[in-house]
Amino acid sequence: MKIPPVKGTRDFYPPDMARRNWIIDGWKRVSVRNGFEEYDGPIFEYLKMFQIKSGDEIVEQLFSLEDRGGRELALRPEITPTLARMVNQQISSLPKPIKWFSVPRLFRAERPQKGRLREFFQWNIDIIGVDDVLADAEVILTTIDYLREIGLTPKDIKVKISSRKLLAVFLRSIGIAENKLESLYTLLDKKAKLPEDTFEKLLTEQVTNKETVTKILNFMNCNSIPDIPKLITKENKEFYAYKNVMLVFDYLETMGVKDYCEFDAGIVRGLAYYTGVVFEVHAVEGELRAICGGGRYDNLLRDFGGPPISATGMGMGDCVLEILLKEKGLLGKSLPKKELDYFVAFAKGYGGGTVYKVAAELRSRGFSAVFSYKTSAGLSKLLKEASALNAKKCVIVGQEYLDNKQLVIKDMATGKQELVNYDSLFTQLKPESK
Amino acid sequence: MKIPPVKGTRDFYPPDMARRNWIIDGWKRVSVRNGFEEYDGPIFEYLKMFQIKSGDEIVEQLFSLEDRGGRELALRPEITPTLARMVNQQISSLPKPIKWFSVPRLFRAERPQKGRLREFFQWNIDIIGVDDVLADAEVILTTIDYLREIGLTPKDIKVKISSRKLLAVFLRSIGIAENKLESLYTLLDKKAKLPEDTFEKLLTEQVTNKETVTKILNFMNCNSIPDIPKLITKENKEFYAYKNVMLVFDYLETMGVKDYCEFDAGIVRGLAYYTGVVFEVHAVEGELRAICGGGRYDNLLRDFGGPPISATGMGMGDCVLEILLKEKGLLGKSLPKKELDYFVAFAKGYGGGTVYKVAAELRSRGFSAVFSYKTSAGLSKLLKEASALNAKKCVIVGQEYLDNKQLVIKDMATGKQELVNYDSLFTQLKPESK
Repeated sequence: MKIPPVKGTRDFYPPDMARRNWIIDGWKRVSVRNGFEEYDGPIFEYLKMFQIKSGDEIVEQLFSLEDRGGRELALRPEITPTLARMVNQQISSLPKPIKWFSVPRLFRAERPQKGRLREFFQWNIDIIGVDDVLADAEVILTTIDYLREIGLTPKDIKVKISSRKLLAVFLRSIGIAENKLESLYTLLDKKAKLPEDTFEKLLTEQVTNKETVTKILNFMNCNSIPDIPKLITKENKEFYAYKNVMLVFDYLETMGVKDYCEFDAGIVRGLAYYTGVVFEVHAVEGELRAICGGGRYDNLLRDFGGPPISATGMGMGDCVLEILLKEKGLLGKSLPKKELDYFVAFAKGYGGGTVYKVAAELRSRGFSAVFSYKTSAGLSKLLKEASALNAKKCVIVGQEYLDNKQLVIKDMATGKQELVNYDSLFTQLKPESK
Repeated sequence: MKIPPVKGTRDFYPPDMARRNWIIDGWKRVSVRNGFEEYDGPIFEYLKMFQIKSGDEIVEQLFSLEDRGGRELALRPEITPTLARMVNQQISSLPKPIKWFSVPRLFRAERPQKGRLREFFQWNIDIIGVDDVLADAEVILTTIDYLREIGLTPKDIKVKISSRKLLAVFLRSIGIAENKLESLYTLLDKKAKLPEDTFEKLLTEQVTNKETVTKILNFMNCNSIPDIPKLITKENKEFYAYKNVMLVFDYLETMGVKDYCEFDAGIVRGLAYYTGVVFEVHAVEGELRAICGGGRYDNLLRDFGGPPISATGMGMGDCVLEILLKEKGLLGKSLPKKELDYFVAFAKGYGGGTVYKVAAELRSRGFSAVFSYKTSAGLSKLLKEASALNAKKCVIVGQEYLDNKQLVIKDMATGKQELVNYDSLFTQLKPESK
């Protein structure tokens, strides 16, 4: 009985797994060197937990299931709700600031499309307990530190940065009512994805006043910080939001990554929960979705029943990233080469178990070692197998072993062979070579 | 709104995550050095896939869900069905033997109890395409290679080995009908878990003949290979099964791990799909469940619609292992120490961004580097923060920087300080220190 995999999921054969590990190991390495500690939560949580942050519309994007008591659960579509739950659970004992990262496997019951699967991995970094744009800058720095390491330059990608606070004070200042802000964010977030006239039509439906529509369009098209003051009035509150945007760019310049960054008032991030700096990383060319996005969310922990603690973070999925890296020829390039320390072979005429003994000994000392299952093959065939596995050295058990308990060590790169006494083989292995 | 985690799942705070990573990284490292390549499949598959191997009774242990088309899916309770599906999909292009490993996250909708959670990790290794007990021996060797590395000795654990084939030919030889074998395996597998009289009572219910019951009990209690011939007749088929058990012990002796292994005819493994050598690893003391189990399953790929290719493998969960390691004091002991290469601090009087610049530079060169968010703290407080993070060195930006563009590098272990020119700091970093 042949059964196919579920649509929108991936099988990771060894070459696919090597790519997945390379991406995830990079996320982990860069997180640690930027001072983040790893955490993770369960794959499923109570369904209602995901509604707190993202509202009811998230429910149709969830894979839901039940526990034995009939309680509604869901596969996590994101890890931020779990993060908020976990931090709140131990809020009094955790030293602040909390700098945590995670690489959760996430699930969305959407129709699969380019760069969007039902099952994917997402790098998350968050700084909790710092009410200073310095933390927003550090989140962006860490994001760039990874993207730069894997070979993406400012010619390939741009971090587009804006501020939800700036947008909010601007919208209030031109007379948008408080209860209309949320649905407006959702629409404004779609600006780059919609044809210009469609967007304007939808905007006019929400904001009937023509002059207000023009003001919003002018604001959204602003991508120069010095132009901001022309668009907002000079009230204190607005000036503070403006100053914070300037400040985050100052920090990014100091940190040496300003050439990756640009101000773009069109960056909104759809979700209602953002409260300050917001950003997305986009490929400079092509029609790809955002590679990642993030921003400040100062109310989330409180919304999850905890104290009012500010937070800022970023999420980067593996699907869009992998497409971009493939396009740029950066994916296969930096994958570590498959290597084998020792292939242990026997020369014809020898039928004992020394081959397995040597392999087992090498492994227990930390070396990778393989023997062949072709137990009746000749030496030349075995050496071919060793080459196919990219073995650095080949240990040959043969007549020399029967005569003098000696093994032949063949360097597979140079072809050079040397005789080694069996008893001294393992003492001879240099620890620095491992 | 406060929502708890789902029962039977785990939150991995950074210290828990460090333990989980330590276990999983060990599984991966040992797999690779034993010549296995990593694969993975999706978290969910079509529900019916899990019934092929484990029958209908598995369904009540599954977390089931639906896709958008209403098709029945389930969270994977094991990865072997996925392995069979994936290998069958590419059977003609994959070089044989296939030596693969995986560390899947698995799910069982059972009542949580000691060593058994609803969500757990399991190390799986499999060798596909080798019809030789040498492969069974290599699976056992790899298992021991890991358990030995983490500090478990033959005094702590024993690999109990038997043969499903031997059991089958024995049962047939004493007149058990073919169609009764499967339910008998399930019962015999429970022998060690049930009180002696309960087991005998249940056995008598299935096998009404008293003499047959005694024969089965004698066989099940046999833990000495030389005693096997006394229990079986000398037909060719039985002798072959017996010879294979002897052979696997010969290989394990050659591989240097025989002191971990013992023959135990009471090892059955419940599932019907085993066809040859079966084994379990048990703690020598205490009442823990098996740490891992495995064996030969020569019919599975065929049952999944593929060709008849022999296979053998092992699965080890993280829950029981972690309990045993805690009991033996081996868990915390070998965890890598949390380390930080550089803490970058400022001395009072200095307010510029050089701290962030230095930290960002160090990170981009692969060093871990952290700055403080306590932007108004004095140097002594910052040095305390550096110590708490276990920093090896502290870079201090202060008056020397303002005067001569020099930085103070403090060795946190010795307390020694040296002055370094800002411009030469990064060229001075030795690559071998990373």
